[in-house]
Amino acid sequence: MNKRVGKQTIRTDSKPRIISTYSVVGPKEGEGPLKDYFDIILQDDLNGKDTFEKAESSMIYMAVTESIKKANLKENDINYLFAGDLLNQLTSSCFAAKDLDIPFVGLFGACSTMTESLALAAMTIDGGFANYVVAATSSHFSSAERQFRFPLEYGSQRAPTAQWTVTGSGAMVLGREGNYPYVSHITIGKVKDYGVNDVNNMGEAMAPAAVSTIAQHLMDIAREPSYYDLIVTGDLGKVGKEITMKLLLEEYGYDLKNNYIDCGDEIFDHERQGTNAGGSGCGCSAVVDCGFIYKNLIQGKLKRVLLVSTGALLSSTSCFQGLTIPGIAHAVAVET
Amino acid sequence: MNKRVGKQTIRTDSKPRIISTYSVVGPKEGEGPLKDYFDIILQDDLNGKDTFEKAESSMIYMAVTESIKKANLKENDINYLFAGDLLNQLTSSCFAAKDLDIPFVGLFGACSTMTESLALAAMTIDGGFANYVVAATSSHFSSAERQFRFPLEYGSQRAPTAQWTVTGSGAMVLGREGNYPYVSHITIGKVKDYGVNDVNNMGEAMAPAAVSTIAQHLMDIAREPSYYDLIVTGDLGKVGKEITMKLLLEEYGYDLKNNYIDCGDEIFDHERQGTNAGGSGCGCSAVVDCGFIYKNLIQGKLKRVLLVSTGALLSSTSCFQGLTIPGIAHAVAVET
Repeated sequence: MNKRVGKQTIRTDSKPRIISTYSVVGPKEGEGPLKDYFDIILQDDLNGKDTFEKAESSMIYMAVTESIKKANLKENDINYLFAGDLLNQLTSSCFAAKDLDIPFVGLFGACSTMTESLALAAMTIDGGFANYVVAATSSHFSSAERQFRFPLEYGSQRAPTAQWTVTGSGAMVLGREGNYPYVSHITIGKVKDYGVNDVNNMGEAMAPAAVSTIAQHLMDIAREPSYYDLIVTGDLGKVGKEITMKLLLEEYGYDLKNNYIDCGDEIFDHERQGTNAGGSGCGCSAVVDCGFIYKNLIQGKLKRVLLVSTGALLSSTSCFQGLTIPGIAHAVAVET
Repeated sequence: MNKRVGKQTIRTDSKPRIISTYSVVGPKEGEGPLKDYFDIILQDDLNGKDTFEKAESSMIYMAVTESIKKANLKENDINYLFAGDLLNQLTSSCFAAKDLDIPFVGLFGACSTMTESLALAAMTIDGGFANYVVAATSSHFSSAERQFRFPLEYGSQRAPTAQWTVTGSGAMVLGREGNYPYVSHITIGKVKDYGVNDVNNMGEAMAPAAVSTIAQHLMDIAREPSYYDLIVTGDLGKVGKEITMKLLLEEYGYDLKNNYIDCGDEIFDHERQGTNAGGSGCGCSAVVDCGFIYKNLIQGKLKRVLLVSTGALLSSTSCFQGLTIPGIAHAVAVET
């Protein structure tokens, strides 16, 4: 009955399956290197709505409903929707959930929400509480910019370490049966704060949380990094990825140079697309995990991956009050 | 293994126990009718901090750490902290979690967060994923007013239907063993929106969600309302409470007149304290459940209660964009 492994990790008994995923992205993401892996690329990042927030909400609604269709299920087959986003009071998720006839659990983990929701979805199935669960999240460049930074109309300059919030949403449907990739282990992270207070350098702020969670996960289940075909952090970008690799090697002796990617680093061609240190936002790891990673798992090109979405837990209020930027990361091992 | 009952409810197998609670409130709550049930009443609602947000965060930190002490446990005995609050990006919870060495799952359910976190904590224990879990939430009158309404310095008039955000935090420690009140059933709610857009009438906005969850819970487990010594909604206040009673009777035939209270209605003496339609905020049901309800359960004065925290899922952005106010409610049955 007790599924705890080591200090901070749990293993699943029933191997909750990811039976379908759906990813929707904006036009810019649709011009990036991973464009062929997304289910739909919007022509217009307003998606026919009159505000960016409504557009983002329509994207998560689309990801959820289309992922359910892809699983050949109906809305009322789904026992729970675990979802969240970056907007104040989860505006995007809550207004999508309002139009869905599914019990709703709202989550906030900043950009760690994809693995936070996936972890809870898998635990809910493994605990015997659900037959089908959807895990989902979203972000939108324009709704995030104006909430966290500046009105777009200012045309602010961007720091070299700044990241570009991904416009996109991803959803995963989990179930009990079938020959699909399954969740084997989950490591819920602790909040880590190394005193970073540069709001233009999220990668540096989140890296210690990624390092803590990845190292604890590997120690808990006594695996070397090489067990995984790929370790996939959320949205550390180029800067945070470098720090994470360096710290894992120097502090823990884990060498990730052969099997480590970061969703924020992969989703854009930074030079060509002007995305500086890389992509970010809840939608970043959501669409890369639901698109690129899941499709490679289904095709057998990947067999074991460790998904580690990472979140920077700041608000504009906490920044204005001089506080630092805490980070968090949750790891979910998916295997076939 | 399958713990589902009816359409939307689950029962626990192992009866996760609520082994301790802790409640901290501000000075105004400490002058209300329930003052004798709170663990500590602050003399100063800034709690020695220089901002209301930092004060709120210090209160949830206090509730979590003191509840752990009351359970004779240490921080590293706790496998998960499920917590959330009203502030943008959960500022209060995240900055408390930063100073706690506990894996953290951030939740947003507006004022439904006490039963949202309690539900997930109980499921996590019942699913075999944890030995001890803390569920917690907080709110603060002054941080909420300036985020959602107006700067306090404006001295705005308050509508008769307006509620008063409770300054307070409550935490519950759940475990596997002992002769304590236990969680028997959980009904996670759906988001309900009846088109209310008056931000000064949260009770009306949340009532349909409370009605939906309570009715579904009773139908799922085939119980009459009289099974419970008390049904306790979160923070509907006087207005929302009346609507909830009326709708449950007229639409479902459930008569709650003998065993129903609302935390927002109970926590203040509205006439004397000028709190209009009642208390609100995540902290409202948190401190009433952790204080008044839990202590009555422990003393044997209550044996079966249904806790139903209720949340209004609005943001200032969604209001400015002309959207209505969706509500949600989660029900947790606690028995001895």
